[in-house]
Amino acid sequence: MKDNANELQIETLVHSWASAVRKRDIEKIIANHSGDIIMFDVPEPFQSIGIEAYKDTWRAFFEFTEPGVFDIQDLKIFADDKIAFCIATMKCSEKNNSGNFKSLKFRLTIGLIKTGNHWTIVHEHHSVPAT
Amino acid sequence: MKDNANELQIETLVHSWASAVRKRDIEKIIANHSGDIIMFDVPEPFQSIGIEAYKDTWRAFFEFTEPGVFDIQDLKIFADDKIAFCIATMKCSEKNNSGNFKSLKFRLTIGLIKTGNHWTIVHEHHSVPAT
Repeated sequence: MKDNANELQIETLVHSWASAVRKRDIEKIIANHSGDIIMFDVPEPFQSIGIEAYKDTWRAFFEFTEPGVFDIQDLKIFADDKIAFCIATMKCSEKNNSGNFKSLKFRLTIGLIKTGNHWTIVHEHHSVPAT
Repeated sequence: MKDNANELQIETLVHSWASAVRKRDIEKIIANHSGDIIMFDVPEPFQSIGIEAYKDTWRAFFEFTEPGVFDIQDLKIFADDKIAFCIATMKCSEKNNSGNFKSLKFRLTIGLIKTGNHWTIVHEHHSVPAT
């Protein structure tokens, strides 16, 4: 149980989003996203601006990862009445050169704004450390 | 000029932090940072937790980058009374294998909380797209 109603709403929203990614359901993935979302994804491009570009990043993700694997390992939520952000460590499963899947840990930061009683994701930053 | 006093305070804080990075002044870099900061940096490690680990990431940065180059290209601030986050695109200058410097663009997300009248950075996420 989270400290306040905002944190609880956001926790539910983030888990619902991750579940939609596991199910590869694009419409559910974007259910709580701003049309102006700024996405920094694990692979190129450098940034994707707007919901259509955001949807494209998931189509690319589906090609190179194992269905059903998109796990929140640790989630911290910082929320006020109108602004919130989340810090998470995540796990998915990536196709390697020989076509087999291997586990991939990545970092995630999410930024949200609240309009009325509804939280909307305006920013996601997914990454792995550079090698 | 920002929309409100919180955004203005944060804009000043982020520019002051970037200036301290350019001057390689560790004490000024951490002037507005939480002891519990969670840092996701461009290179390994996967995450650095706490202010001492955060300082270590800058010592590594100083070894592999050109002094004086740490530029905010674009900065968006989302702030309420107690929680804020920033989205930025950034530029530094990285030493390549032959010892020359080349420009490196990276993505940055910052998370902040306000205590009293003072904003504190509790999270930074720096990254480049994976290749």
